[in-house]
Amino acid sequence: MLSDIEIAQACSLKPIQAIADRAGIAEAYVEPHGKYKAKISLELLQQLQDRANGKLIYVTAITPTPAGEGKTTTAIGLAQAFGQIEQPVLLCLREPSLGPVFGVKGGATGGGYSQILPMDEINLHFTGDIHAVTAAHNLLAALLDNHLYQGNALGIDPKRVVWRRVMDISDRQLRSIVAGLGNKSDGVARETGFDITVASEIMAILCLTTGIHDLKERLGRILVAYTYDNQPVYARDLKATGAMAVLLKEAIKPNLVQTIEGQPALVHGGPFANIAHGNNSIIATRLGLKLSKYVITEGGFASDLGAEKFFDIVSRAAGVKPDTVVLVASVRALKFHGGVAKEDLSREDLAALERGFVNLERHYRNLHELYRLPVVVAINRFPSDTPAELEFLAQKCQAIGARSAISEVVAKGGPGGIELARAVLDSLEEAADFQPLYPLELPLKEKLALVATRVYGAEGVAYTSQAEQALKRLEQLGYGNLPVCIAKTQMSFSDDPALKGAPSGWTLTVREVRVLAGAGFVVAIAGTILTMPGLPKVPAAEQIDLDDDGRIRGLF
Amino acid sequence: MLSDIEIAQACSLKPIQAIADRAGIAEAYVEPHGKYKAKISLELLQQLQDRANGKLIYVTAITPTPAGEGKTTTAIGLAQAFGQIEQPVLLCLREPSLGPVFGVKGGATGGGYSQILPMDEINLHFTGDIHAVTAAHNLLAALLDNHLYQGNALGIDPKRVVWRRVMDISDRQLRSIVAGLGNKSDGVARETGFDITVASEIMAILCLTTGIHDLKERLGRILVAYTYDNQPVYARDLKATGAMAVLLKEAIKPNLVQTIEGQPALVHGGPFANIAHGNNSIIATRLGLKLSKYVITEGGFASDLGAEKFFDIVSRAAGVKPDTVVLVASVRALKFHGGVAKEDLSREDLAALERGFVNLERHYRNLHELYRLPVVVAINRFPSDTPAELEFLAQKCQAIGARSAISEVVAKGGPGGIELARAVLDSLEEAADFQPLYPLELPLKEKLALVATRVYGAEGVAYTSQAEQALKRLEQLGYGNLPVCIAKTQMSFSDDPALKGAPSGWTLTVREVRVLAGAGFVVAIAGTILTMPGLPKVPAAEQIDLDDDGRIRGLF
Repeated sequence: MLSDIEIAQACSLKPIQAIADRAGIAEAYVEPHGKYKAKISLELLQQLQDRANGKLIYVTAITPTPAGEGKTTTAIGLAQAFGQIEQPVLLCLREPSLGPVFGVKGGATGGGYSQILPMDEINLHFTGDIHAVTAAHNLLAALLDNHLYQGNALGIDPKRVVWRRVMDISDRQLRSIVAGLGNKSDGVARETGFDITVASEIMAILCLTTGIHDLKERLGRILVAYTYDNQPVYARDLKATGAMAVLLKEAIKPNLVQTIEGQPALVHGGPFANIAHGNNSIIATRLGLKLSKYVITEGGFASDLGAEKFFDIVSRAAGVKPDTVVLVASVRALKFHGGVAKEDLSREDLAALERGFVNLERHYRNLHELYRLPVVVAINRFPSDTPAELEFLAQKCQAIGARSAISEVVAKGGPGGIELARAVLDSLEEAADFQPLYPLELPLKEKLALVATRVYGAEGVAYTSQAEQALKRLEQLGYGNLPVCIAKTQMSFSDDPALKGAPSGWTLTVREVRVLAGAGFVVAIAGTILTMPGLPKVPAAEQIDLDDDGRIRGLF
Repeated sequence: MLSDIEIAQACSLKPIQAIADRAGIAEAYVEPHGKYKAKISLELLQQLQDRANGKLIYVTAITPTPAGEGKTTTAIGLAQAFGQIEQPVLLCLREPSLGPVFGVKGGATGGGYSQILPMDEINLHFTGDIHAVTAAHNLLAALLDNHLYQGNALGIDPKRVVWRRVMDISDRQLRSIVAGLGNKSDGVARETGFDITVASEIMAILCLTTGIHDLKERLGRILVAYTYDNQPVYARDLKATGAMAVLLKEAIKPNLVQTIEGQPALVHGGPFANIAHGNNSIIATRLGLKLSKYVITEGGFASDLGAEKFFDIVSRAAGVKPDTVVLVASVRALKFHGGVAKEDLSREDLAALERGFVNLERHYRNLHELYRLPVVVAINRFPSDTPAELEFLAQKCQAIGARSAISEVVAKGGPGGIELARAVLDSLEEAADFQPLYPLELPLKEKLALVATRVYGAEGVAYTSQAEQALKRLEQLGYGNLPVCIAKTQMSFSDDPALKGAPSGWTLTVREVRVLAGAGFVVAIAGTILTMPGLPKVPAAEQIDLDDDGRIRGLF
């Protein structure tokens, strides 16, 4: 089989206006960026506000393993399959960060014959949204440090600045720095550091906002520091709101691209799925639902992270409800959850598959029983899967009452997803009775406990004294009614990446609590969460090259 | 009079293809970015390689003062004036950095009725070129620190890393930092810092390169560090070349926009004019000369900085020669050079004008006698100028044999520049006998001495022992044949910003010497050059705002 970029480069793309036409977007709303990408004017969303919404199909996955599940690829292939059976569809995805592109091999534009295009441009600077977030974030940091330097009229305690800086590169060297060294004119010496841009609160804001007015409100509410008197300092106190909004003026508009088979895709926003909420922008999803009968979207990591955050944070802010869920699993990944080592995953092993199935089952029950949604299990077929394994997995799904369908979209594109597409359409006939897990009025600790015990399967939640204090302080500051966003490892239901399957008898330990007041949620950090990745020993960057004719080589 | 952004917003822009048509660029080569900006495919330059070049009009200025000279505005207004007299023209300008936009009020897109549009987009992220430079620069830094962290096979001395990081924000706090603090897994602790992106060697490379092959060569040649054995380490040793080139794949294509009166403008690249060479990209200028009978371009600061570097660095690398020069001056600025305080500049003062004229005269003689070019003095008229002052200045110009013309392009647009345009056309009838100041074969010190004594009017050059050593080392490493790029204050011919007029009897002190091996020049630093600006007490950012309908307010 050809590599992803070879498949992508062999494909002949349609001009972006043809894709816009297919999505029902008139030329007046299309702002082309090159020949195959466009930004869509926000006026279109306003224009369509009275139109009925389409159906929202949410794609999530079992707990990630090194064996791969293929969630994004399945979402893309499913959209292509809808195209094959001539159903109107629109795809809403997150946009990729540059960091992983040059670090660990792997983009965020699908794979094989299920991709969004132009994959190289989407994976590189795309339409500049992430660069705009970087600029807005760092402008706020510069204004804050300039305030400290120019007399500090607000009385900000330099030791209690909570706003760091960001960069869209994986660079461990910047995690922890002392800045403001040098001469008297070179700022105020203090400890700080950089996160990767997708971990920025501004990225979360961009994805949760509903328009320019709301964007400015949220930017102004960002809590950046505390004063010597322990009072919060907001971005608006630094008069930073307008300038940040101006920098995000284009980034707020959703981006239109195409699948390899010509379905329209809105690719917009990409926040982290642990420290932030891990789903594409509300503006894109809302627009998609106005434009198309069926909208397919997906969130980061497994259903305990991206999906939980979509249901409990995004869906409330967006005023939209999911109609059905696709839960992506693979035989290999389930065998890994059943205890098989990575190098042995190609051997048939029904016993391991059975042991690992508990991971799928918990995700399924959460989606179906907690959130009351129809669920289709998508079995992403790998060449090493045996007929006996595939049959066994299908039976296990049936035994717990779950629909399932085999997906072969990597190898076959849309035609490999027709069975899945039909199962999804079937599931939409089922009555969905979606509701979020908790009402916002509950105290923060009760909300955290509900996610930990009901979704993760923990016995309870333990707090460090630092976390206890922070929770109390945030309730006092009036943040008690915000939804919660738990940052934990994606490699387990628990906060211990080594616990595979469906661990029970464990306690979630929250060691730190922060508010993202502009984004509008309280982050509880369980375990060690890296907000700035590092590069591996042999970075993918070493393999990437540009021919003299401008053609990229070695990108996945 | 309306503000710049009010004038810009009241203007009805032509679709970018209409501007491309006017420039003779077929649709196949136009990659639109929104409705009013486009990137132009490099294939067009190849296509036109056998076409004869147009005439190159180089716009420079007298030594900057707080009174303002209006060089960029004059260049834009002159292009508009060519339009008024129905002469084919194309403008080549630098693209602005975000840093100054949010710091000190003032963009880089002209002013009044001589602007390039869309001014807000050009001043903000434009087509992402500067962000691409930031990403490529910082990727190289991350790869270098990752190399140190992952075992340091090349034996790089962490104390002799010469590659810093960059950000396109004015942020003094980042000038001097210690990075790599924290845990063992958080990198290798060492001193470093950030420059503003336009001071990056990669920006200089982007502007000096002639195509993708050459770009890769130059990127690979960047000298990033020395080993414990005192051997140079290059970007290619870190296998960073291909990935950086991929990040710059779009940035290398020139950007097309329009003047307020519809003339095509290629706005591409914007390196610092002290630490780097301060002129727009060679690719844009070359393309312009193939497309148009007349090309107007300009460089940073006064003729001792941007123009000298164009003549001695750019023109050699580009294989193009200027045909005539416009030297922008104003009555107010000359009075400032004559010793008048900023607040008294509106009062008529012929004696001060006469005293300050020596600054103009030295610039004129350098351009006309050293570089053997025709020169037109553009007197940029301000409302406070009296008829007597304007008349006196015109006579002074005539007395030294300089053509002059009054320009009113700020208040009147193209019609205010017709007199200047006719004088420029006249000057092109004069025989130009351009040649650079020095042959490349001269030793570095002789080249530096020639610039200092012949262009700046110094008596000689003094070197710190550090600079002496560095020069010796660079000659040994084979960099003796590169052109030199002196980084000094723009506020004076000398290295002391307080010395106005045409100072003599002083010595240039070079305190540091570096090679930008990829860009292809040796930088000699005289005086204190800030490569990362700071924000002022009241940053322009505080006044900038975005309306709920997406309209920008307070941008200049």
